[in-house]
Amino acid sequence: MSKGLPKRSDDYSAWYNELVKRADLAENSPVRGSMVIKPYGYSIWEKMQAGLDKMFKDTGHTNAYFPLFIPKSYLSREADHVEGFAKECAVVTHYRLKKSEDGGGVVVDPEARLEEELIVRPTSETVIWNTYKNWIQSYRDLPLLINQWANVVRWEMRTRLFLRTAEFLWQEGHTAHATKAEAEAETIQMLEIYAEFAEKHMALPVIKGVKTESERFAGAVDTYCIEALMQDGKALQAGTSHFLGQNFAKAFDVKFANQEGGLDYVWGTSWGVSTRLIGGLIMAHSDDNGLVLPPKLAPIQVVIVPIMKGKDQLVQLADQANKIASKLRDKGISVKFDDRDTHKPGWKFAEYELKGVPVRIAIGPRDLENGTVEIARRDTFEKQTVQVDEAPEVIFELMDEIQSNIYNKALNFRESHTTEVSTYDEFQDVLENKGGFVLAHWDGSSETEERIKEETKATIRSIPLNAEEEAGSCVYSGKPSKKKVLFARAY
Amino acid sequence: MSKGLPKRSDDYSAWYNELVKRADLAENSPVRGSMVIKPYGYSIWEKMQAGLDKMFKDTGHTNAYFPLFIPKSYLSREADHVEGFAKECAVVTHYRLKKSEDGGGVVVDPEARLEEELIVRPTSETVIWNTYKNWIQSYRDLPLLINQWANVVRWEMRTRLFLRTAEFLWQEGHTAHATKAEAEAETIQMLEIYAEFAEKHMALPVIKGVKTESERFAGAVDTYCIEALMQDGKALQAGTSHFLGQNFAKAFDVKFANQEGGLDYVWGTSWGVSTRLIGGLIMAHSDDNGLVLPPKLAPIQVVIVPIMKGKDQLVQLADQANKIASKLRDKGISVKFDDRDTHKPGWKFAEYELKGVPVRIAIGPRDLENGTVEIARRDTFEKQTVQVDEAPEVIFELMDEIQSNIYNKALNFRESHTTEVSTYDEFQDVLENKGGFVLAHWDGSSETEERIKEETKATIRSIPLNAEEEAGSCVYSGKPSKKKVLFARAY
Repeated sequence: MSKGLPKRSDDYSAWYNELVKRADLAENSPVRGSMVIKPYGYSIWEKMQAGLDKMFKDTGHTNAYFPLFIPKSYLSREADHVEGFAKECAVVTHYRLKKSEDGGGVVVDPEARLEEELIVRPTSETVIWNTYKNWIQSYRDLPLLINQWANVVRWEMRTRLFLRTAEFLWQEGHTAHATKAEAEAETIQMLEIYAEFAEKHMALPVIKGVKTESERFAGAVDTYCIEALMQDGKALQAGTSHFLGQNFAKAFDVKFANQEGGLDYVWGTSWGVSTRLIGGLIMAHSDDNGLVLPPKLAPIQVVIVPIMKGKDQLVQLADQANKIASKLRDKGISVKFDDRDTHKPGWKFAEYELKGVPVRIAIGPRDLENGTVEIARRDTFEKQTVQVDEAPEVIFELMDEIQSNIYNKALNFRESHTTEVSTYDEFQDVLENKGGFVLAHWDGSSETEERIKEETKATIRSIPLNAEEEAGSCVYSGKPSKKKVLFARAY
Repeated sequence: MSKGLPKRSDDYSAWYNELVKRADLAENSPVRGSMVIKPYGYSIWEKMQAGLDKMFKDTGHTNAYFPLFIPKSYLSREADHVEGFAKECAVVTHYRLKKSEDGGGVVVDPEARLEEELIVRPTSETVIWNTYKNWIQSYRDLPLLINQWANVVRWEMRTRLFLRTAEFLWQEGHTAHATKAEAEAETIQMLEIYAEFAEKHMALPVIKGVKTESERFAGAVDTYCIEALMQDGKALQAGTSHFLGQNFAKAFDVKFANQEGGLDYVWGTSWGVSTRLIGGLIMAHSDDNGLVLPPKLAPIQVVIVPIMKGKDQLVQLADQANKIASKLRDKGISVKFDDRDTHKPGWKFAEYELKGVPVRIAIGPRDLENGTVEIARRDTFEKQTVQVDEAPEVIFELMDEIQSNIYNKALNFRESHTTEVSTYDEFQDVLENKGGFVLAHWDGSSETEERIKEETKATIRSIPLNAEEEAGSCVYSGKPSKKKVLFARAY
């Protein structure tokens, strides 16, 4: 199956595109920039949704649903927001088709033109804050902690499966608070939740930080983010959490009666992660043989492949396989027994390697005689032969071990690809020849940031939250700087 | 809280609208015909999704995601389909906005006009069958059993929260099969799943049947449906399952190599239920005090209200309440302990009645002394005082009892509002004075069906699957008929 999968070292980009297709994760649709998420890819998204949704609910959030369409005029209400989102969006102008004159198809009915055009939501701050205006009168109505799972559309020119598509799936949290401190605490709490999800579920180490002004969400006071490193040395923004201040409350006139009897504008946050996470998951862990999935997000955690000659042997093997499967399922492990006689074991081995199934069990006639099975790990390709009775416990422990190993591998990669530099020569050299994150002093000006971007294609991914205060001088301008910031070329 | 909720007997329609708003289920948005599904309403939808999704997966289906936008030309590929769906749909014509000349807002950029307009999906048969063409080559690729949870848009002129909205949430299953028999069996299987979900989860008795030609899904060979009866005597179509024959396979040229080596067109089905189910749930069970929710779909199954004077008592009451809550949660029951001191117990009682919480526990100082609690049922308003130790078991059993009682009440209502008639006078009289389902002989012609609709506003809801073969004469034309069909005025 993996025949012809390009090698990462030869062409990382082609490797990614081919892998997404061959592993049945997604494909391009005839609608430019929109993808079809195939069942195997979607089941990874379902696991992500389940993990995140639980974390959101455990911290007091509830889900709701707001309209897909936003009246055009809403976008203009918040000045920065419209700058950021009006440019590339899908616009609904009509609400009816009619038969064409020649009878061969349908055309837009010019008489069914909308008075005000509708925008397909690129994000929902405007329509949600317009609704919150009616929901919030008093401090008793706060905080409002709401999340939405939805599709959004941004008319991107260059698209790439999962990483950048015109339509994508995501969740967007939108909260309203009585005080600045509470809203800021919420912003950080959600950043922490994203980081925990990335590290514990996706086995993806991330750096928590705050964006510079030029990389901030349109309409936010502060944008916090988690940044991860891919195997080609490029960074991927994996989630953002925005402190909105009172910007949207002012734009949509959302005030509340405070406990002292006065009227205040409400404080807001918004935060989101998307199907882009699937792209990050693939690029961080997978290898030249195919996907490597952390057990917590693998749609199938264990596959059992019988090694047999002829159908007669299948009965006995199936009996053994089903017993093991049943014991694994009792431990909450998802198992597939692939007893198809249309494909040979070797083909199946390659297929499940490609699909990133964390553990493969093989059972042949000799195993039956000896009461053993062969267990193979996808992450290290290590094999071991164990007694049937021990297999469930061994595999149960392997789940944690594989999860940790994948995380540690990604962490080691990131650590060995994070370089502190003190000169611009070094800075350029690292970006050109090594890649990865570069920690360097920066003078804090947007002008310097822009110049560096133009000259090196590297952007400031964030000012890491754990950056130490230390006097230094900007790697570009030589001006004074108080801390190092995180640079990288990025997706 | 329920002050001013209109009575069903006075104005059923106003009662419904007010109830949806006051119980915090949904509200109209500024985008005509689009609703905001509020957290309490959305959590009912989440329970519906979880129940249905499990049933789909247990029968071998997987989820996937297809694009929101459909190229205009796709709609015309299936002749009946375009007739049914082209008329009222949202059309995307542009992909960019720009600042208006006067600088006061944004306008559609005339230069960003799409070459081919995109339709916001009203249903996804076309874009999915266009994709299936690439996924299906051989009988080995079949059956393909895929479902999608998504939003869809149909530009309805008269909208009503949950029952008929321009944008709504739904699931749409789309399956592909090698034989006609297999596709027909799938169509019926999904109808059975919908009926089981309605009856077991929603406590809503339904009649399974097949639609007449004029009520068929645009592009289907046969449309099966489940029909439920609301308390005002009107019917509600609660779910449909379509046998598509080879219509979409032919429209999108989807062929497969069969086992004999020949090429055949693929057989298809599609099936869906939507947020409309929430409207049906409300209208079937609720009363003049508010929602009545079956325990299986209630976001909160049990609420505990402390009856106290002053904060001192709360500590002891809270201790008792938390113990009970914990035991209930161990049994898988969702519990809310409402210890707010900003509202009085009477206010809370009315609030949770309005919200349809199936069981209310009240604990006062005397209960503490006696080691008792008061348990009240939302469906019957019955109260009983039980020993604290017995409460969890009593409530656990109540969950089933309430679920059954709500179902039986709805079933009794339907049975007493299903009338067999043999003359057109009787037919009209029942519709005018009693309402409900009317079983009557019909000659099988669309003309008769249309006349009856014009004269009485009643439509043929379905030809019930369990209708007995019996010779008779059409209630309208007197022509021969082989079985009675199900008429009603409907939502």
